[in-house]
Parts: sequence; C-alpha cells; structure tokens
Amino acid sequence: MKPAKSAGIIIIGDEILTGKVQDTNTFFLAKELWSRGISVRSASVIPDITEVIAREVKDFSERFDFVFTSGGIGPTHDDITIEAISRAFGVRTVISDILKSSMERRHNHLTPAQLKMAEVPEGAELIDDNGLTFPLIKFRNIYIFPGIPELLRRKFLAIGDRFNGPRIFLSKVYFNESESVLAPSLDKIVALKNGVKIGSYPVIDNSEYTVMVTFESVDSTALDATVQLLLAKVPGDKVVRVVGPE
Amino acid sequence: MKPAKSAGIIIIGDEILTGKVQDTNTFFLAKELWSRGISVRSASVIPDITEVIAREVKDFSERFDFVFTSGGIGPTHDDITIEAISRAFGVRTVISDILKSSMERRHNHLTPAQLKMAEVPEGAELIDDNGLTFPLIKFRNIYIFPGIPELLRRKFLAIGDRFNGPRIFLSKVYFNESESVLAPSLDKIVALKNGVKIGSYPVIDNSEYTVMVTFESVDSTALDATVQLLLAKVPGDKVVRVVGPE
Repeated sequence: MKPAKSAGIIIIGDEILTGKVQDTNTFFLAKELWSRGISVRSASVIPDITEVIAREVKDFSERFDFVFTSGGIGPTHDDITIEAISRAFGVRTVISDILKSSMERRHNHLTPAQLKMAEVPEGAELIDDNGLTFPLIKFRNIYIFPGIPELLRRKFLAIGDRFNGPRIFLSKVYFNESESVLAPSLDKIVALKNGVKIGSYPVIDNSEYTVMVTFESVDSTALDATVQLLLAKVPGDKVVRVVGPE
Repeated sequence: MKPAKSAGIIIIGDEILTGKVQDTNTFFLAKELWSRGISVRSASVIPDITEVIAREVKDFSERFDFVFTSGGIGPTHDDITIEAISRAFGVRTVISDILKSSMERRHNHLTPAQLKMAEVPEGAELIDDNGLTFPLIKFRNIYIFPGIPELLRRKFLAIGDRFNGPRIFLSKVYFNESESVLAPSLDKIVALKNGVKIGSYPVIDNSEYTVMVTFESVDSTALDATVQLLLAKVPGDKVVRVVGPE
C-alpha cells in the first residue's frame, strides 16, 4: 500500500500565542486532511515575526508533501506571511494582476493597504475555484490561507478534492475500566504490528466511560479483526460501546 | 524594563493531528501564561514518536526559559514522553520512589503498566503542591503535564504562582470599518515604536463590529495614550466600543 502523503500546518498569529483567541483552524484542517487520507505530522503556532515565519515555512516545505499556513495575509502591519515566504525561498514579492483586478472589482481606487493584499511571492499559483470571491494563493507546496476561520473553511472546502488519498478507517471502543488495567492487553495487540494504529485516551469526570481506544487502518478487515482481538481480552461488562469502522 | 520570560508549549498526541480531538490545552496555557507576563513564543503539536518528541523538547528547552509539555504520560504503549525526554538529554529513565508510593496508596499491587507511571528522567524534580493527588514532574526547565485538559488545568493552577512576572495590560478597540481603511492609521502608530504592541483582527459575519484592534504593554499610561492616538484618527461613528486597559 502506498504510504499516506504528509502535511504540516503553520498557524501564524500572536493572538493565539497570547491566548486572546482559541485556534480552531488546526482542528478543522487536521480533521479534513485525515478524512482524505493525508497524515498531518506537525502543527505549529508561531508569532508575527518575518524571520520566524520564513524559517518554519522553509523547514515544513522540505519535510512534508503539503504545507498549510493560516493567517497574516491581510492589509495591516502585522500581515507579513507573503513577505516571509518570499524571503524564505529567495524570491521577490510581486503584485499579482489577477488579485489586483479582483480587489479593483470591490474597490474603486486601491489604497496602498488594499494593494498589499494583491501581493504574492514571485512564481505563485492562484487557485480560483468556483464560488471563491478571492483566489487562494499557492506557492510551491504551500497553500496560503487566511486566518479567519470561516474564510479558511470555505477556501479549503472549495479545493479539498485535490487532497483525496486512500481512505483511512476508524473504529472506537469505549471502556469502563482503568487504562492501566487495559494497558497489557493493548501492548500485546500493538506488538502484532499488523498495520492497525492504536490510541488510548482516558477521560475523567465522564459518567459513561473512562477510556476510549481508537483503531485506524486503510484495511477495514484488519481493523475489524484487531477490534475483536481486544474485545476478546476484556470482560464484556467493561465494554461500554463499539463505534465504527467509519 | 526587564524583558518578559519566554515559554514554549509542546502538545504531544496523534489524536490532535488526526483531528479526533480539538486541543484546548494550548489556549488555556497561553492565556494563563500571558496573564502572568510570560511570553509564549511557539506552540507545537507533534505525534507520539520518541525521536520527534526528543528533538522538539531539546530544541524548545534551549530556546525558551520554560517549556510545558502536555500528553504522553499515562500507562499505555503510546505514552512515551518520559522516555523521549530522558533520551533527549542522555539520562536514564528511573522509578521515582515518591511517585511509586503515590501509586501504591491508590492500588494494592502495582502492575507493570501502573509502575510505568512512576517513571521519571533521572534528576527530575517533583512538585507536590497541596491538593494534587499526583505530583507534577519537572525536569530542567521542562514542566511535564498530562494531556487530559481537566488534569492539566488543576496542576497548572496549583503551581501558577511560580510564573508571575510583570503584568501586561491589554486594551481592545472594536471598529465598524474595513481593515484596509484602518491600516494606514495603524501603520503610523506602529512606526512610533513606543513599546505598545498592536494587533489587528478582522472578523466576518459579525453584526456588531468588523475589526478588533488590540494594544498591549507593561506600561498602562503608554497604552492609554496610544489608544487615544488611534481614536483621534478614526471618525467617532466607526468606533463601536473601547475595552480596557485590563
């Protein structure tokens, strides 16, 4: 089976690092990418500092198949993502005629701040999927998204089909048993190395269950067999619920 | 004025990168640290892979005054944070007698999985603040937290006083005006370089305002003066609300 393509997410914004705003873009992108068979390997929140953005973008671009950035592409002084990406790859920042026209359709006379929103790293591609008022900027393997969650969602969903890979199936088993009691059984199953990825997530203050165990695989038959293996090792009255494969 | 101490946050967990769970620990820690005058410079979500955790922890430990990790300290196969930190610094993983006694008070006979939860990197310090059922593990400048949000919160709040620095004041001004129209006025104020940090955050689909501008400084007088400077540049009917300093 072909290995999944990899991705990294970079959230650019002081507002997240100072706790003024809760980031929801990582959750949205991670979920959407995972459901399309893309493996997100790292997600990073970094401040509005050109050198820091440039270094992170370069590093992620080399390490992962796809990079998704969020934030820093508006008209104000702290919107420096485009400049940082240009600097990271040693290209100029230029005005895109397409973006400029798109801005001009909305404003009679462009101010310097508005013109700034038409800037791209030289060599960037514009993805103009139907329904988008403003095309998405792509440079090399980097997809440059706005930080506003609603805009990021719309833009991602408009181009989501580009990322469809082999589907990953997920099953979840909820237990009413201490994680340390389940651990030896889980260890035995993990030791099989049968291509099914297993995660164990305890919760507290939940009246329904104490541990959720997740099973993931591109092979739904192997997935089902592995779930059954674990269920056979745990007394039935400790099993709250089995969900999936989905 | 003394510069703020710096911090980095490392969220360890495949469940975040696959979008199964929305991370809330970064938001909580960022907010708490910022309110104590600590500047969070980077927050990173990484998978349950020993080498990846070891590299990130080492890097963050060298770059920042404090490092906070979340996740990977339970009894199961995917709980490898302690082992990764030991490896990062070339020390052994050892059983802590204090943690072992703490476990033994809760269980009659410790299984290997339970004993695993008493492991620490050799040389670790245990912080046993009143009210905690299980002490917090600290190694060098790294504070090792559980990933379960409710536990992380309790443990952080129990030791929060350790991080109190100079207070940072925050004011927010909400505008009903396009960000690109506000941008030139903001740029002029940013150019003053008067120690007040300014952020501009547009929203969409909000009936009350279109842009929130934030002002931050350890000097509340400079902060107030800067807010007034911006207000003088914008027509009064475009200002929705001024909040702070708080």
